[in-house]
Amino acid sequence: MPILLESSMVQPGKFITFEGIDGAGKSTHLAWLTKFLQNRGLTVVVTREPGGTVLGERLRELLLDQRQTMHAETETLLMFAARREHLDKVILPALARGDWVVSDRYMDASFAYQGAGRGVPLRKLALLEEWVQGIFSPDLTLYFDLPAEIGKARVQSIKTADRFEVESDQFFEHVRRGYLQRAQQFQQRISVIDASLPIEQVKQNLMELIEAFYRQHGGQ
Amino acid sequence: MPILLESSMVQPGKFITFEGIDGAGKSTHLAWLTKFLQNRGLTVVVTREPGGTVLGERLRELLLDQRQTMHAETETLLMFAARREHLDKVILPALARGDWVVSDRYMDASFAYQGAGRGVPLRKLALLEEWVQGIFSPDLTLYFDLPAEIGKARVQSIKTADRFEVESDQFFEHVRRGYLQRAQQFQQRISVIDASLPIEQVKQNLMELIEAFYRQHGGQ
Ligand SMILES: Nc1ncnc2c1ncn2[C@@H]1O[C@H](COP(=O)(O)OP(=O)(O)OP(=O)(O)O)[C@@H](O)[C@H]1O
Ligand SMILES: Nc1ncnc2c1ncn2[C@@H]1O[C@H](COP(=O)(O)OP(=O)(O)OP(=O)(O)O)[C@@H](O)[C@H]1O
Ligand SMILES: [Mg+2]
Ligand SMILES: [Mg+2]
Repeated sequence: MPILLESSMVQPGKFITFEGIDGAGKSTHLAWLTKFLQNRGLTVVVTREPGGTVLGERLRELLLDQRQTMHAETETLLMFAARREHLDKVILPALARGDWVVSDRYMDASFAYQGAGRGVPLRKLALLEEWVQGIFSPDLTLYFDLPAEIGKARVQSIKTADRFEVESDQFFEHVRRGYLQRAQQFQQRISVIDASLPIEQVKQNLMELIEAFYRQHGGQ
Repeated sequence: MPILLESSMVQPGKFITFEGIDGAGKSTHLAWLTKFLQNRGLTVVVTREPGGTVLGERLRELLLDQRQTMHAETETLLMFAARREHLDKVILPALARGDWVVSDRYMDASFAYQGAGRGVPLRKLALLEEWVQGIFSPDLTLYFDLPAEIGKARVQSIKTADRFEVESDQFFEHVRRGYLQRAQQFQQRISVIDASLPIEQVKQNLMELIEAFYRQHGGQ
């Protein structure tokens, strides 16, 4: 996959992904991180999965539509189709321009939701991971860890449930375990943040992480 | 992929696929084959790709929509997502019931269109092939071989062009070569039919093929 390889080798921008179950605080803290980076003069592309492109948003509609049933492996292939387009149209071009990219969910979500949640073998997900992104990968992943019941309580009142949100607490506990396993496997890249703490404390912990990352990678 | 494995091992029905560029005569002869099989008392499920399921038809709309641009690998993953659903909801259940399934395009089309046509590496397609169907495979594939210009002339007047049909003759010659390469590789499964002959002659050749296949596999 020469294009991906090239882009990831020369990329001057950084790619940060947010992961976690619903209600973990991804959107809340993503907004804050974006401001933090913009205040340092960086151009920030904020995006999300599934989605992030015109086609991806059309696929997101299908994927979240509660009336739409589909096999777990179909769901998986659709997620990766949207991701391939996302890389091609948004993520890689932005990084090549030197922008920073912040995405609300990315690859790890497939291992957590389709893998641990729906039972698609991790080996099959790893094949698609390599198929779609080659050796490219986020520079930093912030995983907001939270017990399923707490996440549910936080979002319950906000909106009507989509095709994932209707799942049981048990499903989301599987998803959570999938995320934790992934964090264990990629300790260098994935930082686990205790998202059950009060919001200001989460922000404080996140800020320290980000400042360390920024000192190491940013503003050369 | 234990489910697929099981189904393919116990399947009493047969799975026949039709392949070829536009205008090769797939629809024409598929209608005839369906009647042939029904006359022998078989239940025939007629289906197509991309499509064949509610979700698959929604994906077909995206895939054929001329205004929709997408990366060749995105297109590939969408085709395989539709195919995974097609196997799960239509093809495997029908074969398990003992029905015969006749599909207007299937797996070989991805090797011809996305592979030879769009340039997606055949190695990457082979990974998805295995990912999606395991060791399952059609019992018989009828490939209608035709030079691109003849196909184009046959369909030009019929309907407005979709996202594939707008491609050049050169594109379809690549597709054709992709099909021929695939037929070379799977000589046991794929029969090449000269689709440039007069329609009655094609039908005659097809009838002989089908009768031989039916004697070998059908009506036990
Ligand atoms: N640490 C926290 N303590 C208490 N409430 C929080 C905390 N973090 C976020 N919340 C609240 O929980 C709700 C969900 O947060 P947010 O929308 O950021 O989660 P999310 O991870 O983006 O969820 P989704 O995946 O559904 O978009 C919001 O009302 C937010 O204010
Ligand atoms: N051998 C033939 N000689 C001349 N005309 C043919 C022959 N086979 C089919 N045709 C005509 O060519 C046209 C296209 O045939 P058909 O629709 O069966 O092709 P197709 O492979 O299904 O194409 P598409 O992929 O566009 O659906 C029809 O008008 C059909 O009658
Ligand atoms: Mg959110
Ligand atoms: Mg046709």
